[in-house]
Amino acid sequence: MKAAVLHEFDEKLEKSQFVVYEDVPDPRIEGPNDVIVRIGGAGVCRTDLHIIEGLWRNNSDVQLPYIMGHENAGWIEEIGPAVTGFKVGDPVICHPLVTSGHCLACRRGNDMHAEESAFPGVNVNGGYAELLKTGQRSLIKLPKTLAPKDVAPYTDAGLTAYRACKKAATHLLPGQYVVVIGVGGLGHIGVQVLRAMCAARIIAVDRSDDALELAGKCGADFTVRATGDQVEQVLAMTGGHGAEAVIDFVGEGSAISEGLAMTRNDGAYYIVGYGGKLEIPTIDMITSEKRIIGNLVGTYPELVELMALADQGKVHLSTAEYRLQDANQALLDLHHGKIHGRGVLIP
Amino acid sequence: MKAAVLHEFDEKLEKSQFVVYEDVPDPRIEGPNDVIVRIGGAGVCRTDLHIIEGLWRNNSDVQLPYIMGHENAGWIEEIGPAVTGFKVGDPVICHPLVTSGHCLACRRGNDMHAEESAFPGVNVNGGYAELLKTGQRSLIKLPKTLAPKDVAPYTDAGLTAYRACKKAATHLLPGQYVVVIGVGGLGHIGVQVLRAMCAARIIAVDRSDDALELAGKCGADFTVRATGDQVEQVLAMTGGHGAEAVIDFVGEGSAISEGLAMTRNDGAYYIVGYGGKLEIPTIDMITSEKRIIGNLVGTYPELVELMALADQGKVHLSTAEYRLQDANQALLDLHHGKIHGRGVLIP
Amino acid sequence: MKAAVLHEFDEKLEKSQFVVYEDVPDPRIEGPNDVIVRIGGAGVCRTDLHIIEGLWRNNSDVQLPYIMGHENAGWIEEIGPAVTGFKVGDPVICHPLVTSGHCLACRRGNDMHAEESAFPGVNVNGGYAELLKTGQRSLIKLPKTLAPKDVAPYTDAGLTAYRACKKAATHLLPGQYVVVIGVGGLGHIGVQVLRAMCAARIIAVDRSDDALELAGKCGADFTVRATGDQVEQVLAMTGGHGAEAVIDFVGEGSAISEGLAMTRNDGAYYIVGYGGKLEIPTIDMITSEKRIIGNLVGTYPELVELMALADQGKVHLSTAEYRLQDANQALLDLHHGKIHGRGVLIP
Amino acid sequence: MKAAVLHEFDEKLEKSQFVVYEDVPDPRIEGPNDVIVRIGGAGVCRTDLHIIEGLWRNNSDVQLPYIMGHENAGWIEEIGPAVTGFKVGDPVICHPLVTSGHCLACRRGNDMHAEESAFPGVNVNGGYAELLKTGQRSLIKLPKTLAPKDVAPYTDAGLTAYRACKKAATHLLPGQYVVVIGVGGLGHIGVQVLRAMCAARIIAVDRSDDALELAGKCGADFTVRATGDQVEQVLAMTGGHGAEAVIDFVGEGSAISEGLAMTRNDGAYYIVGYGGKLEIPTIDMITSEKRIIGNLVGTYPELVELMALADQGKVHLSTAEYRLQDANQALLDLHHGKIHGRGVLIP
Repeated sequence: MKAAVLHEFDEKLEKSQFVVYEDVPDPRIEGPNDVIVRIGGAGVCRTDLHIIEGLWRNNSDVQLPYIMGHENAGWIEEIGPAVTGFKVGDPVICHPLVTSGHCLACRRGNDMHAEESAFPGVNVNGGYAELLKTGQRSLIKLPKTLAPKDVAPYTDAGLTAYRACKKAATHLLPGQYVVVIGVGGLGHIGVQVLRAMCAARIIAVDRSDDALELAGKCGADFTVRATGDQVEQVLAMTGGHGAEAVIDFVGEGSAISEGLAMTRNDGAYYIVGYGGKLEIPTIDMITSEKRIIGNLVGTYPELVELMALADQGKVHLSTAEYRLQDANQALLDLHHGKIHGRGVLIP
Repeated sequence: MKAAVLHEFDEKLEKSQFVVYEDVPDPRIEGPNDVIVRIGGAGVCRTDLHIIEGLWRNNSDVQLPYIMGHENAGWIEEIGPAVTGFKVGDPVICHPLVTSGHCLACRRGNDMHAEESAFPGVNVNGGYAELLKTGQRSLIKLPKTLAPKDVAPYTDAGLTAYRACKKAATHLLPGQYVVVIGVGGLGHIGVQVLRAMCAARIIAVDRSDDALELAGKCGADFTVRATGDQVEQVLAMTGGHGAEAVIDFVGEGSAISEGLAMTRNDGAYYIVGYGGKLEIPTIDMITSEKRIIGNLVGTYPELVELMALADQGKVHLSTAEYRLQDANQALLDLHHGKIHGRGVLIP
Repeated sequence: MKAAVLHEFDEKLEKSQFVVYEDVPDPRIEGPNDVIVRIGGAGVCRTDLHIIEGLWRNNSDVQLPYIMGHENAGWIEEIGPAVTGFKVGDPVICHPLVTSGHCLACRRGNDMHAEESAFPGVNVNGGYAELLKTGQRSLIKLPKTLAPKDVAPYTDAGLTAYRACKKAATHLLPGQYVVVIGVGGLGHIGVQVLRAMCAARIIAVDRSDDALELAGKCGADFTVRATGDQVEQVLAMTGGHGAEAVIDFVGEGSAISEGLAMTRNDGAYYIVGYGGKLEIPTIDMITSEKRIIGNLVGTYPELVELMALADQGKVHLSTAEYRLQDANQALLDLHHGKIHGRGVLIP
Repeated sequence: MKAAVLHEFDEKLEKSQFVVYEDVPDPRIEGPNDVIVRIGGAGVCRTDLHIIEGLWRNNSDVQLPYIMGHENAGWIEEIGPAVTGFKVGDPVICHPLVTSGHCLACRRGNDMHAEESAFPGVNVNGGYAELLKTGQRSLIKLPKTLAPKDVAPYTDAGLTAYRACKKAATHLLPGQYVVVIGVGGLGHIGVQVLRAMCAARIIAVDRSDDALELAGKCGADFTVRATGDQVEQVLAMTGGHGAEAVIDFVGEGSAISEGLAMTRNDGAYYIVGYGGKLEIPTIDMITSEKRIIGNLVGTYPELVELMALADQGKVHLSTAEYRLQDANQALLDLHHGKIHGRGVLIP
């Protein structure tokens, strides 16, 4: 099959050719629960840029060359002998983790903390290709309203935003505030999820007017242009207290300290974006009684929930389509902030 | 002052004159935290009919004659010597319970379970009058967007609906279902609260086409006309399982067994309406693992939350205005199902 | 193999021979995840008496003759081709439900509400036999501290008590009260679970002095002999309010109304035992804001948690051993209240 | 009255005389809810050393000279005109915060996040004195089993430990692990609270053998001497995963990074001690999905809960008594690690 393959890291993202579009062997059914999916669309994610930079070398043990692409959807091409409930041709979206389901975390519904799992596109071959090997437990059948190429980015970008925002929605009450920092591929889904799942006032913060306009369409009540005084603006909007929840889709540079400063005492600061460093004196954690919450991708049931939101039209994803052979262009456009919505590679 | 006074019970609601419009002494400041409110509007509630029927005789120890009216809003007329933060003329809405705030329930924020409390309109004089005595801890200042006569029914009808629906919203996930039985004064607020606070699919059940039309405007996704096969219809809509939550604003007649039957295993049946009897074999509770949840009026903070929803336009209350001297007409219209929205008496 | 087989119902439990000890075909591996377990011990449960009475005919579709026994532990005899992580000879305890793990309830960790499941001993052949067919997802390896015959009753009696008490422990605070009604096979485990998992004061209620003595050894702070004034005694002990949680292991006769009467306003009444009928006017549910919670057997992770308690010595189970051929004697002794602790059949 | 007064900061704690024992004016009733308490005992806290160092200058706006002492208990000396439910001579323990109870945080039961409050001993005069002015809402009557001088340190040291451990107990399940770092004045209460309120395995970590012996008596299952390899030891004890909860009563030096390293993925790191700085790359928060939770002193209801634990003997506090005129000695002994248990000043 054809695939866009990563052969070497590029710490400063200086090249124009990150991956090579080439022929590779097809993936094959090996275990009884394996499934081969013909890719309909594979999302292009900032994590892919971080992988190219080598940022994940310490957090996963991938060996080059390999195929990136962890946001995948398509049609079933082949199933292993123990797979039930699915047949060749079914349109499916793929939860990003492949698990056996036997460890205690899986049994508690917390499959993204499985003791053993594969993460196609991160630590094994992913979906920048025509075919992907995954497992039965990762598949959700798509309703007719949703085409694979239109929903692929929900599996990671969407699901991560969903999980963090769902956590916040659980404790956000009417009259309270939630700040969303960064209204890009994840953030614009986050705003929609919050709008659907709680009645708190949503304040969107971004450097770009386009992003803030998108935030408004997604349901933000207020927008704040990040020109330096964003903390002061948020404090002014919230009676000087800050917001009960801040969801930081940036997670690097000054966003971290600003996000903490925008968080009300007894409130929660959710980290979703990454690349920077969290630094805070413990006395400030004590006196404020703030909570700092890390957020990974969501569980399989959470992807089912997100698909329900998409199916009902409560969440909509903006995508920009690229051909698989143009993967480098998609990655470059993402790197240079030129993609509106989420890039998707189509074989 | 003028008031509409209840002099005797009427078990079958056969009279045309339930209360007497007459002169009574003004209420007076007695404790340091007392407040006198000039009534702007007092809601007319089905509980008032139940009080006239004598249904509450065993649950409160009110002595006749007394003044009903437990949904009150207006302007501050006079304050006790220890009252701070309010001044004469302030527009306020009155939480229905008057508490001292010293018991452990109050200290935990659960003021409607205070060890000692007064419930004006239920066990002491209420707001079918020109003036009402309440306490500082019951008052919420109104924003300019909200007039007392337009919001008075939020204090009980709205607040009770809010509390039950908030409990349900806490556990309702996208893709799940919630049934609202009875879309009257409480139910139509309940639908709006659910729409604002969760992303579950809302199924409204009522005998009246008008009520179902209102439900649709309030945000219900589906409506079911209760003509006898409502349980079957709800089961059919929910894949044969029933809904994860059922909120029963009727609570009498067949609604109770139907509500339980519409509740999915591991789901919750919330009782808000009353007048009937719950009957279920314990084996059915075991095998289904259902939860049956009683719901009283909400707390003070919950009334603040509901006012935030009203202020933001996420909840709207339909009212029908009556003059205080026409209280009997309002009660009769309610009894005969002739009020659309919620009746409010205006002195 | 040998088994004790149920051939016909006996609605009044009048016979002395409920089951027949006879030869039956061995169970066989059919699906890839099947496992055959050689029974080390099978618990004898009041539900078995209820099954003989025919009480479960409407709640399960078992066809006679079949083999009862839903509390099983032993050693692995044979495994299906897709089973991993277990080998022949491993000592195991069997979660009572056999599930595929694919439905959304299972994926959320709520496997006892699986859309499709088998319940060996209730709706397919169980463990009153030398061999039992179950599935990989039902098995927990036993630590060396725990022998199969000593722990078998944990799988249903213990697990059901654990689940209900864990729910209560989640909301019980120091200074609050919890009542345990019925200190038999389930109740004495319940008291130990509560003692290990919360700091509330435990009040045990039973008709038998022996049971109350056992309750004291299990960690109850107070005991109440049920001689007619048990509600008054509990109210007196709790300042007139009742307990924040009542766990009813009886669930029939007057225990139900008494359990509700012992429950404090805003408190929870947990139903575990069954056979009777719950009856309460909806107005009483409203004014008290009580919660009534049905309780089925616990999940697989909850059985893991209970085994941790047993392994650490925080929960101990009293058993009375019978040979498999004496199954009728065990059932009769249970029926006549002659078993102290929990009966276990040993092939 | 006599008091031990702080006249100037001492950033390096180099002096031997931090406070001056001298005559000062008696406090007086000013507001209607004021109460004067005759001090029976005032706890000596590491926060007092931090105050002397000036560490709190940015977090409270206290003006010198003033009287420290925020852990107070005694007998009521005088009450304001609106105080009800208390009389002169009543033995009481004082919640450390004085609030009006009118803000939304107080109404939600979250009084330690009140919009306006006084913190005697931190930002107004405290209990290193014969008399203390506080408010009605801060008082809890003591049962006869508890003497003021024996319980005073519960109001801050105990209450802070209680709150953090209660948060952890809410999510800790049987079979899981909790690490307590630092078994001093707070930590030894924390271990007892955890032992009373959950069934997780408790691992105590400290540099001192005496502290670890105390931890064992308080209910720790395992102890780890902190000699450099404490992270490795904890990981080895927990199957390489770390603990589901880590409660850090040190909060400075290497304890912070070690505490985070001992925390399992999807687990929670609770900060109670302070003085150091939390530093962690956001990518590590993402991939681990850890939660970092700040902890302030508990609420009034939580102090009631802690008193219930003390009254029932589930929590015991070791104290070392000093005369008020020996306040400097108590502070020096604390600074040099010479106090076993908690120092208490007795006028």
